[in-house]
Amino acid sequence: MSLDRLIKGIKEMNNPTVAGLDPKLDYIPEYIRQAAYEKYGKTLEGAAEALFEFNKGLIDALCDIVPAVKPQAAYYEMYGWQGVRALERTIAYAKSKGMFVITDGKRNDIGTTMEAYAKAHLGVTDVEGESFEAFGGDALTVNGYLGTDGVKPVINVCKDKDKGMFILVKTSNPSSGELQDRSIDDGLTIYRTMGNMCEKWGEELMGEYGYSGVGAVVGATYPEQLGELRKALPHTFFLVPGYGAQGGGAKDVAPAFDENGIGAVINSSRGIMCAWKKEEGLDPKDYAQAARREAIRMRDEINSVKN
Amino acid sequence: MSLDRLIKGIKEMNNPTVAGLDPKLDYIPEYIRQAAYEKYGKTLEGAAEALFEFNKGLIDALCDIVPAVKPQAAYYEMYGWQGVRALERTIAYAKSKGMFVITDGKRNDIGTTMEAYAKAHLGVTDVEGESFEAFGGDALTVNGYLGTDGVKPVINVCKDKDKGMFILVKTSNPSSGELQDRSIDDGLTIYRTMGNMCEKWGEELMGEYGYSGVGAVVGATYPEQLGELRKALPHTFFLVPGYGAQGGGAKDVAPAFDENGIGAVINSSRGIMCAWKKEEGLDPKDYAQAARREAIRMRDEINSVKN
Repeated sequence: MSLDRLIKGIKEMNNPTVAGLDPKLDYIPEYIRQAAYEKYGKTLEGAAEALFEFNKGLIDALCDIVPAVKPQAAYYEMYGWQGVRALERTIAYAKSKGMFVITDGKRNDIGTTMEAYAKAHLGVTDVEGESFEAFGGDALTVNGYLGTDGVKPVINVCKDKDKGMFILVKTSNPSSGELQDRSIDDGLTIYRTMGNMCEKWGEELMGEYGYSGVGAVVGATYPEQLGELRKALPHTFFLVPGYGAQGGGAKDVAPAFDENGIGAVINSSRGIMCAWKKEEGLDPKDYAQAARREAIRMRDEINSVKN
Repeated sequence: MSLDRLIKGIKEMNNPTVAGLDPKLDYIPEYIRQAAYEKYGKTLEGAAEALFEFNKGLIDALCDIVPAVKPQAAYYEMYGWQGVRALERTIAYAKSKGMFVITDGKRNDIGTTMEAYAKAHLGVTDVEGESFEAFGGDALTVNGYLGTDGVKPVINVCKDKDKGMFILVKTSNPSSGELQDRSIDDGLTIYRTMGNMCEKWGEELMGEYGYSGVGAVVGATYPEQLGELRKALPHTFFLVPGYGAQGGGAKDVAPAFDENGIGAVINSSRGIMCAWKKEEGLDPKDYAQAARREAIRMRDEINSVKN
């Protein structure tokens, strides 16, 4: 009912990072794509097969050193239901290897509809008395614009199934401030207000490390706000995107951690997935080993700056 | 590049409503469910088949009198990739019958990731030079919490493919005010600020009826705000949920329309889908005709109160 399984994984591996699995076709070595197209043609199904095979190699190479993966739903939906099936297979495979899976879907809706998303991504779906895990992630990213009605159904599933969520608080993109940085009537910014809501929603889901099951997404590209929010939200665990390709460095993510060196998990997607393209003379068949080397480099870099 | 195709359909049928396709298994007559389970078992695949067959009957019964359908992605994702396939089939079938399809996904993300959602739901996906429509909706609901970066990629696809979108402005749920009703530094509420952003984003996508391709979701459950926003946002077309099962009546939606009687499309989901349960002595095989009767009743009721 909290994010304790994630925090435990981070501690055991001494690695506060998550590998983003946002596979685009041009991140995938040609030999994997060709093998998929030979089976299924240059189709959505062929592309989806390539996505899964690429992910499988990455998961195999990372699962003993990186505690979590974060597949981004958009990159699978782009390939239709066939891509969504590759998402489901990726989640199942990562879990079979012991990884914690954060499904990055930024889902949001009201009451019963949000309940459907919560069942889809974290819980189980009932078909005439039989229960099925539709996607089976361990945590889901959620957009909180709709208020408590849009979060409560996720809280309920988290309680029931020992799952967690991350609410968008201060996102990593350049225009995130257009709305999120505005101050509201009590003088607090919108992102801070959303952060305070996370603290409140999390009360029902407290874990043993002092962090609740309601985490927050806070971008590495805004280190000042990251530090402000770390102090203001002592029970809210952070998922930090924006490290690497988006411009955030190790020093930028340091403020995300508490005095015990926990409190955040830092995501890298392109940096890890595309590491093989940056090593000169590398055989593309060794793409996953290149990803592993980058994941270790990132782990060590981040450990060197956190408390 | 605007919502003109929707507005044209509304005018031609003299019907400013959209049928929400949010099928839950217990909305579906038993004979449809049984037939699906006989083929595919009591599985996610069986459930998904029942969803599609139910929708197909509704679309057949509604397509000459209701201009649009709005499938809610959550209710399909709940049944896994098999459910998502039923969503894709539902969209394709509704389009083949000439209906305008609003995919209610409330998607949101940053830059390149939002581009992937836009391609998935409104545009085309490239696989090695071949183009595929992954889902092929005509409009997508979008959550604007991330600002312009999260909307611009959708605008680009709308321009290119003559599609539209609806941004969440003032949602219909009881807790929508927790954040959306707060006032920000310039004295405007957050929902009004989001509405103003819709006007601005829409400038690039103006249509011939004076409305842009960037619509807004505004709930029927807040008629006062609906009227305020109609006046404040003259180029923003409204998608209005909350009529019927959520408590909004015909008088509540009247303020959504402009002086020419356009400017909004009113959604009903449960009211139409479950109409067959309310007609005493009805043969469940006539569920779609019951839906048609309710759709006509709703059309006439709403036409009687709008300008």
